[in-house]
Amino acid sequence: GPSGGPFSRHGIGRGRLPFSVVSGEDLAAFERIVPGRVITDPEVLEASNVDWLRMVRGSSVLLLRPRTTEEVSHILRHCHERNLAVNPQGGNTGMVGGSVPVFDEVILSTALMNQVISFHDMSDGPVCPCGCGAPSEAQASVQTLPAQRPQWPQWVLADGMVLNCLSTLRKDNTGYDLKQLFIGSEGTLGVITAVSILCPPKPRAVSVAFLGSLCWKMLGEIVSFLVCSLLWGNQSRLWGQSPFYVLIETSGSRAGHDAEKLNDFLEQVLSSGLVTDGTVATDHLKVKALWALRERISEALSRDGYVYKYDLSLPTERLYDLVTDLRVRLGPRAKHVVGYGHLGDGNLHLNVTSEAFSPSVLGTLEPYVYEWTAEQRGSVSAEHGLGFKKRGVLGYSKPPEALRLMQQLKALLDPKGILNPYKTLPAQA
Amino acid sequence: GPSGGPFSRHGIGRGRLPFSVVSGEDLAAFERIVPGRVITDPEVLEASNVDWLRMVRGSSVLLLRPRTTEEVSHILRHCHERNLAVNPQGGNTGMVGGSVPVFDEVILSTALMNQVISFHDMSDGPVCPCGCGAPSEAQASVQTLPAQRPQWPQWVLADGMVLNCLSTLRKDNTGYDLKQLFIGSEGTLGVITAVSILCPPKPRAVSVAFLGSLCWKMLGEIVSFLVCSLLWGNQSRLWGQSPFYVLIETSGSRAGHDAEKLNDFLEQVLSSGLVTDGTVATDHLKVKALWALRERISEALSRDGYVYKYDLSLPTERLYDLVTDLRVRLGPRAKHVVGYGHLGDGNLHLNVTSEAFSPSVLGTLEPYVYEWTAEQRGSVSAEHGLGFKKRGVLGYSKPPEALRLMQQLKALLDPKGILNPYKTLPAQA
Repeated sequence: GPSGGPFSRHGIGRGRLPFSVVSGEDLAAFERIVPGRVITDPEVLEASNVDWLRMVRGSSVLLLRPRTTEEVSHILRHCHERNLAVNPQGGNTGMVGGSVPVFDEVILSTALMNQVISFHDMSDGPVCPCGCGAPSEAQASVQTLPAQRPQWPQWVLADGMVLNCLSTLRKDNTGYDLKQLFIGSEGTLGVITAVSILCPPKPRAVSVAFLGSLCWKMLGEIVSFLVCSLLWGNQSRLWGQSPFYVLIETSGSRAGHDAEKLNDFLEQVLSSGLVTDGTVATDHLKVKALWALRERISEALSRDGYVYKYDLSLPTERLYDLVTDLRVRLGPRAKHVVGYGHLGDGNLHLNVTSEAFSPSVLGTLEPYVYEWTAEQRGSVSAEHGLGFKKRGVLGYSKPPEALRLMQQLKALLDPKGILNPYKTLPAQA
Repeated sequence: GPSGGPFSRHGIGRGRLPFSVVSGEDLAAFERIVPGRVITDPEVLEASNVDWLRMVRGSSVLLLRPRTTEEVSHILRHCHERNLAVNPQGGNTGMVGGSVPVFDEVILSTALMNQVISFHDMSDGPVCPCGCGAPSEAQASVQTLPAQRPQWPQWVLADGMVLNCLSTLRKDNTGYDLKQLFIGSEGTLGVITAVSILCPPKPRAVSVAFLGSLCWKMLGEIVSFLVCSLLWGNQSRLWGQSPFYVLIETSGSRAGHDAEKLNDFLEQVLSSGLVTDGTVATDHLKVKALWALRERISEALSRDGYVYKYDLSLPTERLYDLVTDLRVRLGPRAKHVVGYGHLGDGNLHLNVTSEAFSPSVLGTLEPYVYEWTAEQRGSVSAEHGLGFKKRGVLGYSKPPEALRLMQQLKALLDPKGILNPYKTLPAQA
């Protein structure tokens, strides 16, 4: 349950940094900047104070909902002057507690910045602000397309300065690639207020194969999507008795060509004994149903008890070894040790469940999982970032010189440290 | 000719910065670091003092040829302590004078760092040091594959500190993405000594179509490679009488499928009148011959006289307007105004030739070309970087706040400014 986690129970082990506390004058100033969008109602604030996994909970008394980059700039300028800490929040869908306040940081939500600013049909993608995760038009249009890396963002620095490098150019080699510093910095270096995303045309033909296999390793050499180890029982009639399942999606411009290639592949893996059973879908609804099997894994896990979550990059040939290793180490203390992920990318989502939070299970898992990953020169956070929960483990994947440089960049861009404090970088000694 | 350019003739309009001058003691120290690879012979130095376009010429008296990251680190530590300016040089194939010294900077060549460190067959790419452009094994292996963005580099900071974030992981979200600051910084923030590159498997089937067209604009909506306007006469019997030519390459795993798609496309553009003549090749040698038509454009231009070169990103629908505009503005003062480039990317390589270097032609071109590009919110350097020749025009594509942040990053990472001075960023007022 939500109250059983190591974070809500034990706090961060050190106190709130000496930021200012929101005053009546601050509230009046914010009301002038974002009239009617200064939220202090505790019931409304509740959803923004807790992450969706319900494991990290802050105690902010103020939620601001700007609609424009200019409003974000004015808010940050005020916070910077007043030394108020700020928690930038998008869709609050993070996995590492990076999107919620830790103490009483002012929550700056981009949920209302959810319009598509422009959409170019040809070489360019949509330019849209960052109400990430909000059920908005921007999201909807992007979700229907295989979105790629942002081409350009617009962002606001800690002191309110706006950096507008927004354009829809595909190629630009003028000066340092500043945007890259901000992408993935989890709101600790600036607040991204708009992005331009290049979207290839939606593929005309999509096929999904869902295959059971006895041996994930050999499949790893030929397929590139994800492998699930299913230990919490069959979710639907589609799941059979194989120890491993692989979901493969192909997309292209001509259904006939794609079907031919996929059928050749299936014949090959079936005749070699790699695949023991499976199903193929091209129909939109059946495709969606197969993907739901993957998308609901998190939900299934959270119903199993307390979940210890890790998101690792590992050499593909060692991807599953940690799962089998941990089953032995944890024994009956773990309900399930589940590994799934993106096989082609060497990305393992490792999940361990126990009846309730257990310091003994945690002690067995950490730092063991991180040390094991570091030995393989893997990454202790493949997709999820570091946020609040994983900030202390950055050193397992990056050398001390890199950490020092990151701290210097943080100090340069946010000298007062008001942006998303207690996140991403380890607490300084 | 080489002596006619505005750069070798007029210098940079301001003097050499107050760096130290290489002493006998420095030479002895370098001889200890890279024994036998300390070059002071003026004849050998000549090739490293001049860029391959023969337009920018430095007067360095010292070329160092390290083989390892450790040697690079020791060299930089010494230069940093002694306040010696350094010009990192790879293959010296740059277009903007970024790869050669401006005054007497020590040339640090990575030409000998040309081995493939490792090569992973499956999800990973080759890890190789940075003897870029050297006719080495590393180059050969990378050139046979469609190389993509570097996954990870290893680099050395101005003071000799090594940052080793080298790994072959596809996914890593731990901390700030430091490598991105260094990629494209043209040796002004650090010296990249090794990179890991992800290479998808070499496609089994390649087809190239070379098509003549009356109308580049409509083609732009369906093809994605490059359009050439050929104004300096036919290079071979392959070239016909069309005002525009388009080169299209398709690659895939099955020749039959690709041929079918390409033929459908050709039927469509021929029947619509978009394409008037052309040829298609799948044979390796014919494919190479068609590509040579593009690859030899620069050489053909340089034989036409003095070449004013621009490398712009523009909205695709305006891509060619600047070419026709400049033909009118320049009249008979220009021998040719040639535009070619990457249509799908909105990237125009604009080349103007005149009998010899002419301040009047240059005055008509600049700042006009940059202002025209800035009005379209384009980039004044799509691919080539800024180097020495274009450092002054960064402000046409980036706002003052971005320039200030770049200067701050340079000051943080290279406080003495010894790395590739006079490059990339505008001279500070």
